[in-house]
Amino acid sequence: MFITLEGGEGAGKTTQSILLAERFRVARYIVRQTREPGGTPLAGAIRAVLLHPDASLTALRGVGLASGDEPIEPMLPTTEVLLLSAARAQHVARIRKWLATGEVVICDRYTDATRVYQGAGRGFALNDITVAERLATGGLMPDLTLLFDLPVEEGQRRRQHARSAGGEWNRIDAESIAFHERVRAAYLALAATEPARWLVFDATLPPASLAEQVWEAVQARLPETGEAHLP
Amino acid sequence: MFITLEGGEGAGKTTQSILLAERFRVARYIVRQTREPGGTPLAGAIRAVLLHPDASLTALRGVGLASGDEPIEPMLPTTEVLLLSAARAQHVARIRKWLATGEVVICDRYTDATRVYQGAGRGFALNDITVAERLATGGLMPDLTLLFDLPVEEGQRRRQHARSAGGEWNRIDAESIAFHERVRAAYLALAATEPARWLVFDATLPPASLAEQVWEAVQARLPETGEAHLP
Repeated sequence: MFITLEGGEGAGKTTQSILLAERFRVARYIVRQTREPGGTPLAGAIRAVLLHPDASLTALRGVGLASGDEPIEPMLPTTEVLLLSAARAQHVARIRKWLATGEVVICDRYTDATRVYQGAGRGFALNDITVAERLATGGLMPDLTLLFDLPVEEGQRRRQHARSAGGEWNRIDAESIAFHERVRAAYLALAATEPARWLVFDATLPPASLAEQVWEAVQARLPETGEAHLP
Repeated sequence: MFITLEGGEGAGKTTQSILLAERFRVARYIVRQTREPGGTPLAGAIRAVLLHPDASLTALRGVGLASGDEPIEPMLPTTEVLLLSAARAQHVARIRKWLATGEVVICDRYTDATRVYQGAGRGFALNDITVAERLATGGLMPDLTLLFDLPVEEGQRRRQHARSAGGEWNRIDAESIAFHERVRAAYLALAATEPARWLVFDATLPPASLAEQVWEAVQARLPETGEAHLP
């Protein structure tokens, strides 16, 4: 079973991934917790270039793997989609292997995030995103997608708070409020078009109550058989 | 005018790029010499991950931009095409700017190389390559493509020689003879289908004679007007 978690910045997806994986483990499922962009070593290298292009280039120049000293240019939306898709292609190969052995795969963001962030957020043509999605995923879609919906201001407040506590702050966090509003609306619209796959949660709830709601909803959707259990 | 140079490993494209650019400069054209993958700072970072994924990951981990210590997994053909396309998208934006001001752009490898290396070489579906090509180039194709054709054994001998003299040796060099034979045949086939764009040269010739042939052929194709000259 392939479960993805989606939602804006600060919606608590990472925490909910951990708590959901823990519930599965307690129920003796074999579970993998992963995230995008990333999820494999090579995808991790691509993630670094995507989220921190300037620092990555400096590091690669530092060891002679890239040349020149010209300042880095802005990343084009097309490049962003292609890099995300490249990382995804590596990740999908790994996810397919896990699923083939009956494991539960819990993934923090997947191709819906590209539809929403690059499509609705940056205005990248949805047709081109579909094309890149097909190349990257080969058609692998989640069985279940959990959307953690949060007002944009609350998400920004949480991420700013995490940042002041030393948390990561990246190119996406730094986007405008209008961008994050488009992202939120696009997630809700996607969820509405495919209600059999999406479950929407109110991410303003305290993490423990939210985790409870998530586990109840996920259990109700669990296939009767097919997933590997610990002996 | 947008001129690309193509051909197998060791065919002398880099030398011929330099010599051709020099001829243009002497004739007082404003000329840019560039290469793929690469051609911009961000594309250079992507190039490093493409050609040296393991060393790049180590460098990114070394500065905390990537995590984990799992050995890197093999790069999938899809990932290779997507990374090449990502680097190309950044490069194309720059090439378009140069062309818009009437400069002559000489580029060592372009999208034909992806058709040939990833398509014919690795058996990647040509339809998917076309899709990635459209995303990366937005339809920008060279006015003239110079193919430096060389028997595979001679190309390998030259690259091995360069390597023993401390030159770069990368993932592509390390491919099998059969791979490089497919690449050579695919280049010749592409040239045959679009003779108005391609010029084929015998790369076994000494560099100076080859440069002479190239310059004569290029001059014959030069548009009468439109390119910027130095005052």
